[in-house]
Amino acid sequence: MTNKDVAKRLADLGTKIANMIEKKKVPKVNVPQRGLNNITFDRKANLLRMGDKTSTRNFMNIAHSKKFMQTLMIAQKCEELVGKEKTASIRELYYQLKHTIPNSKENTFDDQDESNQLIVDLETMLSVLREELHLKADDKGTLIGNIVIEDSGDVIDCSKLGRSGLSIPSIVEHYKFKNIKADYCLVIETGAMFDRLVEEKYPQNNNCIMISTKGQAARGCRRLVNRLSLEQKLPIIMFTDGDPWGYYIYSVLKAGSMALAHESERLGTPKATFVGMTMTDVETYGLEKVTEKLKDVDKKRISELLQYPWFQTKEWRHELKLMESKGVRIEQQALASKSLEFVAEEYLPNKIAKKQILS
Amino acid sequence: MTNKDVAKRLADLGTKIANMIEKKKVPKVNVPQRGLNNITFDRKANLLRMGDKTSTRNFMNIAHSKKFMQTLMIAQKCEELVGKEKTASIRELYYQLKHTIPNSKENTFDDQDESNQLIVDLETMLSVLREELHLKADDKGTLIGNIVIEDSGDVIDCSKLGRSGLSIPSIVEHYKFKNIKADYCLVIETGAMFDRLVEEKYPQNNNCIMISTKGQAARGCRRLVNRLSLEQKLPIIMFTDGDPWGYYIYSVLKAGSMALAHESERLGTPKATFVGMTMTDVETYGLEKVTEKLKDVDKKRISELLQYPWFQTKEWRHELKLMESKGVRIEQQALASKSLEFVAEEYLPNKIAKKQILS
Repeated sequence: MTNKDVAKRLADLGTKIANMIEKKKVPKVNVPQRGLNNITFDRKANLLRMGDKTSTRNFMNIAHSKKFMQTLMIAQKCEELVGKEKTASIRELYYQLKHTIPNSKENTFDDQDESNQLIVDLETMLSVLREELHLKADDKGTLIGNIVIEDSGDVIDCSKLGRSGLSIPSIVEHYKFKNIKADYCLVIETGAMFDRLVEEKYPQNNNCIMISTKGQAARGCRRLVNRLSLEQKLPIIMFTDGDPWGYYIYSVLKAGSMALAHESERLGTPKATFVGMTMTDVETYGLEKVTEKLKDVDKKRISELLQYPWFQTKEWRHELKLMESKGVRIEQQALASKSLEFVAEEYLPNKIAKKQILS
Repeated sequence: MTNKDVAKRLADLGTKIANMIEKKKVPKVNVPQRGLNNITFDRKANLLRMGDKTSTRNFMNIAHSKKFMQTLMIAQKCEELVGKEKTASIRELYYQLKHTIPNSKENTFDDQDESNQLIVDLETMLSVLREELHLKADDKGTLIGNIVIEDSGDVIDCSKLGRSGLSIPSIVEHYKFKNIKADYCLVIETGAMFDRLVEEKYPQNNNCIMISTKGQAARGCRRLVNRLSLEQKLPIIMFTDGDPWGYYIYSVLKAGSMALAHESERLGTPKATFVGMTMTDVETYGLEKVTEKLKDVDKKRISELLQYPWFQTKEWRHELKLMESKGVRIEQQALASKSLEFVAEEYLPNKIAKKQILS
């Protein structure tokens, strides 16, 4: 969506409310409901989706008045940001809007939680991403490999960044992909495993791009993977720890998250696949000695995952049940018990060649 | 220190112990004590330092035997890493060494805490950094600005990396600084403030390099700042939140940390200075409305900082006492309440030009 499109949606919102006031109608807005009862898993698209239910925010309802005002303040500030081609962190937005209302002791905002929630409301009301409203979350993640990206006029060859790599910013809407020679993109949970594969020259030897998410992927990272998959048709393969937390990181990358179901199409990557670590790997590669016992919190998380519709395939249920029955988890870095090179020279190339991957 | 030097120190340790065994002496090693009673603050150098006290680890003392074995296993693996020019994360090292001792039910290591502690012992015994032993911690941090770095054969112009920047790896020993045209290096606590200054073209307009630490600086980041200061004589100016946590992040960057006092000279940057946020800023710039109330945990931390020898200057005591008496803290991003551009166009340039900085 262009800046102009976003500006128009914001202006339309303002015009609509101005018209209500002029016609002496009660100003109100319809906000999509974001509760679980309005979220469904679209099996065909393999994405979490938000339904059609909405709530009305009514300026004349005393329980809504403040939120109504706050929503419009945020919309107004976003219009300014889009117009000035500036971006602000959601924390900066909060500080920009926080002030005491003249002739009162009332603050516009008292806590960033208030503005954060309303930013999501605005996104869903207008069907725009927060990045398109020129708002951003924290950045995290690194990219390395055979891809040339144009970023703000600079042409960056990501295969020439030594062992350092490119820092993935919180907004990647402006990235232009100039030249991608890679066969696939490997998305890696831990920074240390990413480093290992950089050291083993895995991207050069396997002609791939690598991205480290450093835990749960940040929005910039998820959007980048989404764009590589959708626009560039690049296969996406994820590599996480063999535990419910790693599997959930994968599922968020793939199907989106419940909190951000309205953005699944722009942040989720339904075509992503999963190479490991699986519980089957433990047997195949004789890794029993380097597993770790599940804690109660792990066990609880496994049973939650077993409820999620997107873990209902035979293969995923098998892995989760196996984890439950073995009572262990395994880390990516446990592969180092074979040898430092093992992951790069045998584990990943073999599993990917033999298509031992889950979807 | 070259690979050869490090290999020699490791080999010397092995030879020394082999000699003891051949001479039928009890094998033992001396390990510097790392407790607080062996750490001092060197006021002249402005660095935390480890003293001369050592403990003896004796193979024939049943309380020491396992640790002795583990220490030598780690030393042996590090010798292998250095010889093969490989690096390993401290987690990989743990997995590489973890196994069950033949004909027993005893594991070499049961928990990574065991190996982590002994890595530090080995560092202090041999006076080498863990990075020189080819071990690495997690990476974090981003760099952008007018500096050309050679990294593993690639020549990277960090002024041509768009809004993304270079990901700072966990090991920067191999960086070669080719060309630095910057006047100073601004080290920034939060990723969001870094983004703000990138957007405002602060590095271009003020001819500086910027580094974001994203919270407490990782070792790679601290070592990079140390090298820029010591080798390149680049002034280092830090910019954190105005709270005890931000001030502590600054003090670790500057004077080192108690846990790593043996590495202060390679990780600390005594010449670093501090531009803000200060409590004085709150008055100067009328930021009272965007401060936040101190929590009990903040108050406790302030009184701890007031005890540290490196916060005993008149200026720092004034700031900390002011924070205590006002009962508030302030974030970097609260400057957005003036305007988004304020931090880049007024706050930082003015304070730096007028030398309103603490040391």
